[in-house]
Amino acid sequence: MSANDSINNKQSIAGEVGKNTIFPVSGIRLATAAAGTKYQDRDDVAIIEIALDSSVAAVFTKNAFCAAPVQIAREHIAKTTPQYLVINAGNANAGTGQQGYANGLEICTVVAKTASAPVETVLPFSTGVIGEQLQVDSITALVPTIFASLNEQGWEAAAAAILTTDLVTKIASTKVDIDGTEVTITGIAKGSGMIRPDMATMLAFVATDVKIKPEVLQHLLKESVSESFNRITVDGDTSTNDACLLIATGKINDIYINKTDSETARKFLQGLIQICKSLALKIVSDGEGATKLVRVLVKEGKNADECFNVAYTVAHSPLVKTALFASDPNWGRILAAVGRADVDTLDINKISIFLDHVCVIEKGVPAEKYTEMDGNEIMQQSALTIEIRLGRGTIAEHIWTTDLSYDYVKINAEYRT
Amino acid sequence: MSANDSINNKQSIAGEVGKNTIFPVSGIRLATAAAGTKYQDRDDVAIIEIALDSSVAAVFTKNAFCAAPVQIAREHIAKTTPQYLVINAGNANAGTGQQGYANGLEICTVVAKTASAPVETVLPFSTGVIGEQLQVDSITALVPTIFASLNEQGWEAAAAAILTTDLVTKIASTKVDIDGTEVTITGIAKGSGMIRPDMATMLAFVATDVKIKPEVLQHLLKESVSESFNRITVDGDTSTNDACLLIATGKINDIYINKTDSETARKFLQGLIQICKSLALKIVSDGEGATKLVRVLVKEGKNADECFNVAYTVAHSPLVKTALFASDPNWGRILAAVGRADVDTLDINKISIFLDHVCVIEKGVPAEKYTEMDGNEIMQQSALTIEIRLGRGTIAEHIWTTDLSYDYVKINAEYRT
Repeated sequence: MSANDSINNKQSIAGEVGKNTIFPVSGIRLATAAAGTKYQDRDDVAIIEIALDSSVAAVFTKNAFCAAPVQIAREHIAKTTPQYLVINAGNANAGTGQQGYANGLEICTVVAKTASAPVETVLPFSTGVIGEQLQVDSITALVPTIFASLNEQGWEAAAAAILTTDLVTKIASTKVDIDGTEVTITGIAKGSGMIRPDMATMLAFVATDVKIKPEVLQHLLKESVSESFNRITVDGDTSTNDACLLIATGKINDIYINKTDSETARKFLQGLIQICKSLALKIVSDGEGATKLVRVLVKEGKNADECFNVAYTVAHSPLVKTALFASDPNWGRILAAVGRADVDTLDINKISIFLDHVCVIEKGVPAEKYTEMDGNEIMQQSALTIEIRLGRGTIAEHIWTTDLSYDYVKINAEYRT
Repeated sequence: MSANDSINNKQSIAGEVGKNTIFPVSGIRLATAAAGTKYQDRDDVAIIEIALDSSVAAVFTKNAFCAAPVQIAREHIAKTTPQYLVINAGNANAGTGQQGYANGLEICTVVAKTASAPVETVLPFSTGVIGEQLQVDSITALVPTIFASLNEQGWEAAAAAILTTDLVTKIASTKVDIDGTEVTITGIAKGSGMIRPDMATMLAFVATDVKIKPEVLQHLLKESVSESFNRITVDGDTSTNDACLLIATGKINDIYINKTDSETARKFLQGLIQICKSLALKIVSDGEGATKLVRVLVKEGKNADECFNVAYTVAHSPLVKTALFASDPNWGRILAAVGRADVDTLDINKISIFLDHVCVIEKGVPAEKYTEMDGNEIMQQSALTIEIRLGRGTIAEHIWTTDLSYDYVKINAEYRT
């Protein structure tokens, strides 16, 4: 298989997740420009303006070495509600020490001055190469131009401007009927390289026109992240720069979500999860060099922890991943990965494994009716589910992953060169 | 870089570990033959005969799903001292259920009958594809022929017969002077695919002519394994078939090691570790598609656990591994991996990173004197050390790993096809 074949396949899986009409969100304006520091012929800086009186919730990377912009964003959002997000692609401003912090702050300062707003209302986001200092001037010089072009239709341009090694833009948008009122949820994201999301930072910015109490917004963000972005990464949010923001502009006056357990909140959460899941699947489908979108579903566990443990061990096994790339129903590799998951007293005689609907292993041994041809057929698909039944309990959890292809190596070996 | 370039590089790193003269071990005879079940034009079955009155110690895989031969070997060695080891390559007899167990036992039975020995004195070892039943007859038919050719010079033939995806044979041999007596230690091993050793089973058989008390032998085996084979695998001994045997034939009457803390034991252990380490480095250097042998050294930790945790997180990062393949001193990926290791309260301002002697990161930021050229020079080498100083304590631990190349994907994607 040539690199080109593989990349074509890859684009087609990413495409399968589907394209939506993009609905602007009242209270959000966006614009972009080209700093040209790393990429030629494309925009690489975006500013998102958030209307006053919005609520904003955020989750950040758990990596011990969070990047300068993450430090600044955490400090600023702790002080006040953000009004401006400034995002640059190509340089992560990570591992850059005090100079990096000063550079991030300098960008915020320029944005704040241009907007006549306090510097704390500006959050910086960076993604790209680690360990090189930002060319601050090339970014700050663009701020007036970007401000002049802020507009509610800027979502697609922003989605494109924040990409790094991504092959496709990630954008999702929906309208949800809540108690007779039509509300909008729209989001953009970037990220790929989902074997482990080290440097392939995940950024996501989702906004709605609903009015939502800040504490409730934070809760809704966590719920939706745990059903979406946190199921496509190996170690949770562990890049140095990962961040996910949820903005509620409150431009729709009819609805106010001020409790997490109301019917209104539940309806909204359903729509929010749909958007986040759509973005997450676009990310994992765009996994570097990925040719397959694979759901790993672990059932019959004693608790969620052990289900996730088994799912991640299988999803991270390079041998399972290369078998997926080869469309080889090599269940032995799946079984060996399950066997080394950190779960006490696993009994092979209770384990069953399915590829989609095809039972491959039944209670520890090849299923009687299983034929290699059946397995091959499923493995040819660009999307499939590996289902593992542990025979220990009633809990089920799932995650999404991709295969490991020549292109993964190619993309990551050549990233800086 | 073409596949051929890479494989040539790889053979050269494997070769660098060095070739020894192979000294036979009095009391050990070996022979091989070709069952032809998977491989053409090569031997794939070996029998090792152990003289009566020997001591034998063993460690087996910790994978919850150990293969049928491992179950049988464990049961047999618990009952009596082994006299025969029978090893087949190409089929792991794993995930094969009761039929697999019966097949393994059948092979032992035929060997035992041929030798007029109890079946419990025979241990079976299998390596290769998981989940296919052994073609027992093609193996048992060879047993008389193999017995007829057992000889003390059979080490190299046995080393070759047990290989699967390995590119080079792994054999090491030394003579050690202990209190004026020359003793021999010789071993063979197989294994590659050391990103994670799932299916790429590691087998090692090491023998000496020294007389050693069984409990002491087990202790010496564990000590030497922890300094060698257990430092080249990600999850310890976690393939379904991993096994390591240490045999003391006791043919040299002058020395009897019956205490673990004697000077004699220490001298012997030194030689044993040398052999095990040599075999382990041959395995990791032969890692599937590997072009580099990389030691990850973590210093200044609070305890061994956290040093290993950081070392494994770095060694397993596909992004670090692909950067190594590209000879790219991309320390940002190393730093990001350290940051997501499961270690509490890591402080980036105390972390330093070296590539061999070159300081790249000093207390969290790029070292003042560091230049990309210096980093590049180290990364061009086929062997190098990534040294990470945590600035938290005085403990140091190291492991060995390899890079992640196109060939890794190629070899593992095409293993069964």
